[in-house]
Amino acid sequence: MSKVGVIMGSKSDLPVMQDAIDILKGFDVEVEVDIVSAHRTPDKLFYYGKNAHVRGIKVIVAGAGGAAHLPGMVASLSPLPVIGVPVKSSNSIDGWDSVLSILQMPGGVPVATVALNGAKNAGILAAQILGSADQCILDKIVVYKEGLKAKVIESAKDL
Amino acid sequence: MSKVGVIMGSKSDLPVMQDAIDILKGFDVEVEVDIVSAHRTPDKLFYYGKNAHVRGIKVIVAGAGGAAHLPGMVASLSPLPVIGVPVKSSNSIDGWDSVLSILQMPGGVPVATVALNGAKNAGILAAQILGSADQCILDKIVVYKEGLKAKVIESAKDL
Amino acid sequence: MSKVGVIMGSKSDLPVMQDAIDILKGFDVEVEVDIVSAHRTPDKLFYYGKNAHVRGIKVIVAGAGGAAHLPGMVASLSPLPVIGVPVKSSNSIDGWDSVLSILQMPGGVPVATVALNGAKNAGILAAQILGSADQCILDKIVVYKEGLKAKVIESAKDL
Amino acid sequence: MSKVGVIMGSKSDLPVMQDAIDILKGFDVEVEVDIVSAHRTPDKLFYYGKNAHVRGIKVIVAGAGGAAHLPGMVASLSPLPVIGVPVKSSNSIDGWDSVLSILQMPGGVPVATVALNGAKNAGILAAQILGSADQCILDKIVVYKEGLKAKVIESAKDL
Amino acid sequence: MSKVGVIMGSKSDLPVMQDAIDILKGFDVEVEVDIVSAHRTPDKLFYYGKNAHVRGIKVIVAGAGGAAHLPGMVASLSPLPVIGVPVKSSNSIDGWDSVLSILQMPGGVPVATVALNGAKNAGILAAQILGSADQCILDKIVVYKEGLKAKVIESAKDL
Amino acid sequence: MSKVGVIMGSKSDLPVMQDAIDILKGFDVEVEVDIVSAHRTPDKLFYYGKNAHVRGIKVIVAGAGGAAHLPGMVASLSPLPVIGVPVKSSNSIDGWDSVLSILQMPGGVPVATVALNGAKNAGILAAQILGSADQCILDKIVVYKEGLKAKVIESAKDL
Amino acid sequence: MSKVGVIMGSKSDLPVMQDAIDILKGFDVEVEVDIVSAHRTPDKLFYYGKNAHVRGIKVIVAGAGGAAHLPGMVASLSPLPVIGVPVKSSNSIDGWDSVLSILQMPGGVPVATVALNGAKNAGILAAQILGSADQCILDKIVVYKEGLKAKVIESAKDL
Amino acid sequence: MSKVGVIMGSKSDLPVMQDAIDILKGFDVEVEVDIVSAHRTPDKLFYYGKNAHVRGIKVIVAGAGGAAHLPGMVASLSPLPVIGVPVKSSNSIDGWDSVLSILQMPGGVPVATVALNGAKNAGILAAQILGSADQCILDKIVVYKEGLKAKVIESAKDL
Repeated sequence: MSKVGVIMGSKSDLPVMQDAIDILKGFDVEVEVDIVSAHRTPDKLFYYGKNAHVRGIKVIVAGAGGAAHLPGMVASLSPLPVIGVPVKSSNSIDGWDSVLSILQMPGGVPVATVALNGAKNAGILAAQILGSADQCILDKIVVYKEGLKAKVIESAKDL
Repeated sequence: MSKVGVIMGSKSDLPVMQDAIDILKGFDVEVEVDIVSAHRTPDKLFYYGKNAHVRGIKVIVAGAGGAAHLPGMVASLSPLPVIGVPVKSSNSIDGWDSVLSILQMPGGVPVATVALNGAKNAGILAAQILGSADQCILDKIVVYKEGLKAKVIESAKDL
Repeated sequence: MSKVGVIMGSKSDLPVMQDAIDILKGFDVEVEVDIVSAHRTPDKLFYYGKNAHVRGIKVIVAGAGGAAHLPGMVASLSPLPVIGVPVKSSNSIDGWDSVLSILQMPGGVPVATVALNGAKNAGILAAQILGSADQCILDKIVVYKEGLKAKVIESAKDL
Repeated sequence: MSKVGVIMGSKSDLPVMQDAIDILKGFDVEVEVDIVSAHRTPDKLFYYGKNAHVRGIKVIVAGAGGAAHLPGMVASLSPLPVIGVPVKSSNSIDGWDSVLSILQMPGGVPVATVALNGAKNAGILAAQILGSADQCILDKIVVYKEGLKAKVIESAKDL
Repeated sequence: MSKVGVIMGSKSDLPVMQDAIDILKGFDVEVEVDIVSAHRTPDKLFYYGKNAHVRGIKVIVAGAGGAAHLPGMVASLSPLPVIGVPVKSSNSIDGWDSVLSILQMPGGVPVATVALNGAKNAGILAAQILGSADQCILDKIVVYKEGLKAKVIESAKDL
Repeated sequence: MSKVGVIMGSKSDLPVMQDAIDILKGFDVEVEVDIVSAHRTPDKLFYYGKNAHVRGIKVIVAGAGGAAHLPGMVASLSPLPVIGVPVKSSNSIDGWDSVLSILQMPGGVPVATVALNGAKNAGILAAQILGSADQCILDKIVVYKEGLKAKVIESAKDL
Repeated sequence: MSKVGVIMGSKSDLPVMQDAIDILKGFDVEVEVDIVSAHRTPDKLFYYGKNAHVRGIKVIVAGAGGAAHLPGMVASLSPLPVIGVPVKSSNSIDGWDSVLSILQMPGGVPVATVALNGAKNAGILAAQILGSADQCILDKIVVYKEGLKAKVIESAKDL
Repeated sequence: MSKVGVIMGSKSDLPVMQDAIDILKGFDVEVEVDIVSAHRTPDKLFYYGKNAHVRGIKVIVAGAGGAAHLPGMVASLSPLPVIGVPVKSSNSIDGWDSVLSILQMPGGVPVATVALNGAKNAGILAAQILGSADQCILDKIVVYKEGLKAKVIESAKDL
């Protein structure tokens, strides 16, 4: 079965990254969670990046804050699509550092960046990537979107 | 065969977006190119967004500049993964408007955003998405990355 | 009677947008309020944008946050003047995303943008637009401005 | 006949502001052009702002750069809707000063702000404001939008 | 006796502007305080700006927030040196709007801008301006600076 | 006779700072020009700052770019009013560093900051400061402002 | 024995700067702490900068906020390596002023800048500088880094 | 003999990084230059980072642009002091991405960041680091600074 690897640079990123885990589980996608710090555990980063696709992982979701190098370095090491979540950590300058150090990757090594603290969207995007080759997941995306619509329609009734 | 849809908001975005087309062709991925303006051809946008996955497209790459609504609106209409390319168009404020109006999508509707003018990376990312379920494309990504490495190693020799 | 349509991307925008509703009611302008999400209810957006002017609406006030596409997409679909209110929502980067994704519309499709969270001014502007052809409303604007002046003069007395 | 007043802070703003004049003339709207500097001709500013609506002007389009006070000060003096065009003048910090000093008006005194150098959209918006009470102009807006669409459709044919 | 005029756009600016008043009083400089809103009391602004130097005022300190036009407009109307205090008001985008709309005045009409919420420095600067022709005030500045130094030296003792 | 000291951090700032010199000479104010680098000639900086007011200088105009410490350090050393000109030097990040490192002085040590590259306004402000105690210079300011007005009125005639 | 001088512009910077002191003490490096304000105690700054290397100090760590001139001015006066800590003080604009006025030093006078409020890293960097010639300290850095790694590995176990 | 390792992410960074090489050679410091791309040659990065201090390198100067991960990743892998040079590469957003992704390192892993394109200062800083334990190099720094001073004094003579 397809698996999504969700990693983050520090346990303090978990409250943000939990959204990705939850939504993927809601789509019945298998999730493997780990803490991999680019700056404090570079060997683990190397091992993770080089072997994720061998271990059956199909998409990597990586969250980090400040000078956030984890998503880009995993993208450097892995042939898999990597989704980056800029985390507005306590040491961040309003989130700009997190956003720019994940988004502005050089030509050749993309990171699929989502909004600041947008871990939920990272999870949905991971599901969509799996869904591009898995009709069952694609159908769940369609149903999920119908649910979003229904909630808005409902909320408009109370006005 | 898997197909990637590359769309842009204006023909003036083509010089930037051509990088996505070229790299995808280099991976032997079928590409369909079109101009779809969120603001000037909303009907075409709707038709495109609602039917892309029905027509065999697996990933959408959408580029736009300024208040860039094309990637987000296509993501709103399609269950497919959408990659957004912020284009630094002539009417842009140093590219910040393009970047923020593509990146900062609300929870529920992700756009996989790449760097400003990063169409090449959008193409690679699209290939990686296809490659997450297609070993042949994944192998090409691996080879491509080997090529990047070789070029750097080579360039270091002349120092 | 002239009617102003006030829409917003999410019910969470209502505390901000209420200022537009209140000030318009204070000018005895008929207001129709709805929730229309560009990203979650694109069909409703299309219907709304294409039919507002047919239903007797003269001006549209649209508020949204983050990658705020609602004002621009309504402007794309409607011939009416559209006033955009950038909302500093919880997922916004200090409001810059909301401001730029509403303000920086491409040539051909304007959005009359007001200040961040400036829904009150959006309401006044809508009244001024109606007032440009309705002497009665224009007179109310004049009186309203006299009131602003009086309050400042009054506040200076206590110094 | 309805008239739009187009003013700018300096003759050096004319190359940008001409777009507003041209598009309004294309809609057969009468345009009156003048140079009114908030900082160098405050008396003219006062006279202009206080009398524009008396002289038959229905909408004011005001362009300025740097610490751009003209649109806001005219809005302070006139009951008419005022459209502000932030001009990226030579003394501007990438246009941010022009944008923020026009957009961020306090509650009570709105300026309908368009994109940086977006004089064309200011002209369209002025026409839309007139069109909210003038079916003939509204029809021209509809036709104009059809033209925008046609050009995009046409440009897509050459791909 | 020389007099400094301290004005602000709204009574809500008083907590910030009080610092200017207090420090000037500490230098035994006569201060006249008023509320003058560029956008809500333009007539008062005109009267104030045109007559301040006639009424014996030698320096004007003007504080305002958001699209802050008060300091620049007073500078436009008066031959006196005008000190602008960007106030970080509730409707401001992190203070950038206040700073840029006061600082970036066009050639010909300067505003002596101090730091965001820097009313204390505005007061000192006003005293320095008077002091450039009044040895007694200059001496007080020298003494004040000695006091600053002493406090730092003292605070270092506890380390 | 009153004298204005114009200093700059590097000879490369002279093309910008010349505007201050020229306008002051136009007001018949005596100007003394020097190059004083806070970072390369700290001893000269100290001597200059501590002795300027002793040598008959009444106002100091200091221009610098990048991490621009000259205006603030002179203000630290001298009791005189110091006007800071942020210069957009080649090593500057769009001028933001120059602006912020001059403007954001701590409480107690003001620098009267003008616009980016706004040396002309620095010169006018210096004249206004002298003029606050010198009717003859104040009159020249009034005449200068009349000239600004006349030029705008003239330029409007050609439209 | 090698000594690191830790200075800050105000006692209010101590809560941030304490991190540098603590980590250096943890490496058994001798630390000398002082308050030196560039703007309020320029003479102390001069004395400190000119004599630090004579007094046996090998590295200087300097923290300051707002228009932060202390690190750059010490670097101007001393031949020693100077590490600058941008402090997000209460009068700062989101920390940008502190960062840019420390980082953007002109060619010839470097300041080794660390992250906003990054005093801990300043301490580590000071130790690394000493360690580049002192194997004992270098070994402590290696051990410290092992500790960082161990904590991450440990924290991942609870997931 | 002490050696400084100068590395950069791409050969296109050489024109900027050459300044570091030149100034170090001017101080008679041995320099080893290489191209090491964090994203394209991660294995080389790992080897370099882990072995630099073993090979006799005492300080590392690393330059990169855009999402610049090279300096931070080398700092993660090496116990040596690492100096980061943010390069304003063609794919950069005005240099902000380069600056923030190098400067904003998390606690535990410092990078000594210099100004945008500030390779010259990186070289001087590397020499100062060596000089903190090498009187001969320290003396050269003193002489170098004397030279800077002399040039400014000289340039002031022509005014």
